[in-house]
Amino acid sequence: MTRSSTALMTDHYELTMLQAALASGTAHRRAVFELFPRRLPEGRRYGVVAGVGRALDALEDFRFDDDVLGALDGVVDEPTRAWLAGYRFTGDAWGYPEGEVYLPHSPLMVVEAPFAEAVLLETLLLSIYNHDSAIASAASRMTLAARGRPCIEMGSRRTHEEAAVAAARAAHVAGFAATSNLAARQRYGVPSTGTSAHSFTLLHDSERDAFRAQVDSLGVGTTLLVDTYDVAEAVRLGVEVAGPGLGAVRLDSGDLGVLAHRVRAQLDDLGAHDTRIVVTSDLDEYAIASLASAPVDGYGVGTQLVTGSGHPTCGFVYKLVAREGASGELEPVAKRSPDKASVGGRKWALRRRTPGGVAEAEVVGIGAPPTDDGDDRALLVPLVRDGEVVGREPLEAARQRHERSRAELPEAAQSMTRGEAVIPTLVQDAAANA
Amino acid sequence: MTRSSTALMTDHYELTMLQAALASGTAHRRAVFELFPRRLPEGRRYGVVAGVGRALDALEDFRFDDDVLGALDGVVDEPTRAWLAGYRFTGDAWGYPEGEVYLPHSPLMVVEAPFAEAVLLETLLLSIYNHDSAIASAASRMTLAARGRPCIEMGSRRTHEEAAVAAARAAHVAGFAATSNLAARQRYGVPSTGTSAHSFTLLHDSERDAFRAQVDSLGVGTTLLVDTYDVAEAVRLGVEVAGPGLGAVRLDSGDLGVLAHRVRAQLDDLGAHDTRIVVTSDLDEYAIASLASAPVDGYGVGTQLVTGSGHPTCGFVYKLVAREGASGELEPVAKRSPDKASVGGRKWALRRRTPGGVAEAEVVGIGAPPTDDGDDRALLVPLVRDGEVVGREPLEAARQRHERSRAELPEAAQSMTRGEAVIPTLVQDAAANA
Repeated sequence: MTRSSTALMTDHYELTMLQAALASGTAHRRAVFELFPRRLPEGRRYGVVAGVGRALDALEDFRFDDDVLGALDGVVDEPTRAWLAGYRFTGDAWGYPEGEVYLPHSPLMVVEAPFAEAVLLETLLLSIYNHDSAIASAASRMTLAARGRPCIEMGSRRTHEEAAVAAARAAHVAGFAATSNLAARQRYGVPSTGTSAHSFTLLHDSERDAFRAQVDSLGVGTTLLVDTYDVAEAVRLGVEVAGPGLGAVRLDSGDLGVLAHRVRAQLDDLGAHDTRIVVTSDLDEYAIASLASAPVDGYGVGTQLVTGSGHPTCGFVYKLVAREGASGELEPVAKRSPDKASVGGRKWALRRRTPGGVAEAEVVGIGAPPTDDGDDRALLVPLVRDGEVVGREPLEAARQRHERSRAELPEAAQSMTRGEAVIPTLVQDAAANA
Repeated sequence: MTRSSTALMTDHYELTMLQAALASGTAHRRAVFELFPRRLPEGRRYGVVAGVGRALDALEDFRFDDDVLGALDGVVDEPTRAWLAGYRFTGDAWGYPEGEVYLPHSPLMVVEAPFAEAVLLETLLLSIYNHDSAIASAASRMTLAARGRPCIEMGSRRTHEEAAVAAARAAHVAGFAATSNLAARQRYGVPSTGTSAHSFTLLHDSERDAFRAQVDSLGVGTTLLVDTYDVAEAVRLGVEVAGPGLGAVRLDSGDLGVLAHRVRAQLDDLGAHDTRIVVTSDLDEYAIASLASAPVDGYGVGTQLVTGSGHPTCGFVYKLVAREGASGELEPVAKRSPDKASVGGRKWALRRRTPGGVAEAEVVGIGAPPTDDGDDRALLVPLVRDGEVVGREPLEAARQRHERSRAELPEAAQSMTRGEAVIPTLVQDAAANA
């Protein structure tokens, strides 16, 4: 099955710049673009890179077929459309692999290609990285706060229907155990799970009928929603219907901490010692942390996960940092006017670590890779070589990488309070040191 | 061309509830679900309904083909999958038409169908309405603040790549003149536009070369980005290269108010009286309002538009409010435990207006339509009848409706300060009055 082209997930100006550059003869100058954050979201200690695999898929589907070219009538002239008909990305890209932690100025992706090929990718790459990394960055704090208890992603209904699928994937990278989203299960193999809604109870003539229907069809291991009418009565009824082997009960309203204690005591009284308690209802990392001492066995997280818990986008930018000059050599370039000035020159990065393996600094080298002190870890891996995707990996690899990368951070990374980046970003300028 | 099925943009539990209801014999009970907001985002005076057209498209594409059914292996049992293979929505839906203003408890969509058909739509409908209405609600405040000056949507890079397309569409409904997003142009006919990026200037050997290339290829009516190096020098150069007929200049950094005054004076000195000034750079409705007295001719809005300016989702819910009882009649139902309790019974709505046509209240009738006092306006229109979409309309109709509906609100709606809903929601319960 042919996937749709992603080439119109693009801003108008990228196409008109291409037209002007083709006409002026500069379009084929070799160029280096970098995708990076100027800063972390205010108060956050670290960020999480996500969307890498999706970006590589999108790059492969970035092509100008007849449908796409037809849509560009009135946007760019015929010579530009003719050039686009033969578009294929032929360049190279390196980047932080998925799941890696990032800090301010981490060079998350470095794209080297003719200007004409690379400039067109700006919007698509930023959309994917900005969205998916915002979700993963929030999710990572939630799974930290949950201290090993499973988090389940349930936010599909609170975000765009396609963003929901990407959010489920990004949350899984950052440690969420499962999702409610069936498309994420289909496309990415994220485990899916579910309980039931108030509507299911209300559909039946009584709560007993509803529980009986659910247990009969889905087995005693199912999760019963117990707050439609009266929680204590529903818990009693649930164990009566399913027996003490009832899988779990879900609480979706009220003071979850108080209720969890009360329901745990009741379940234990009823002999349902292994029946788990799952809580949902506008949870974020702070609410999860506040429930640490409550007898809760799992957190279902919705709105705050898919909206990045206050930071729905990362603010990554994609900037030209070097391009071929008249001499044929790559020359550093940068915006110079005050505000939003950037640093020209190609970047490399490594994570400086103590001999004990604790991260100490994000070291960004300009013009040359920074020096490895022996315990450090290089951060850029090849993603695309001569236009071929080489950086694809199973989602599970990204998930495991995130766990390792986060574990390497100093303990302050685990703080839920607002603060500075957990390690500093150090910049080494090869030209300045030469 | 066959569009992809939307049937997996769905939460796992909707399918397992279906399985249990099919087994218990309740699946085919007639049911009424309603999609509504419990409240407005904190501080907002009104909201804007968007996504209606997209929801109707998504409903038509909600089908369980072989691909989809294959993905449900392990989610639901074989009898359920067999039932799903024949799924077709056969019910009715009414709703607020697109662009309409909403208030707390406005019944934005009312779906009447067998439970089995309607329960499956929960996540998909909520995703679309929650996202698109959040964008339109933010956009409407921005176009108010802009007081007739054009707003251009440029936020694609800050949100998921498909959410970006929907955001451009929703912003257009709420008065944005154009978008940078080419897919929104292709799919929905939203006018697209663009300027150029710093990378285009940096690609060339000099700013003069870059401006020359842009003007030669795109004409003197183009918009030059003038803050790569020195704004005053770039403005001088731009008029030198393009002549006093230069279309516009764009400012993307610095103190936009101060710069706009300075650049306007310089353009006028150079005889470029008709050259417009477009500003961008993290604008929101407050920044736009603060520029009201500056000589600005257009606002490009990115991040804050696509993230709903602090409110990236609307918090709409989709609740069962009535279902067929043992008698065969529809009976009101509602969650009754404390917190998140809802009001059962089918809803109707009208906007109460003064004889002068100013909105006074949102009147929600339970069980029967509220009484029209003569100057009022009914708010629900048919969207789907016997499974056929009947509520489709051109996007321009939604755009015009929004303008009319917003103009009808009391003046307090135009306030950018935080406050209460601009008109109260009154509930009339037919059963209580009978």
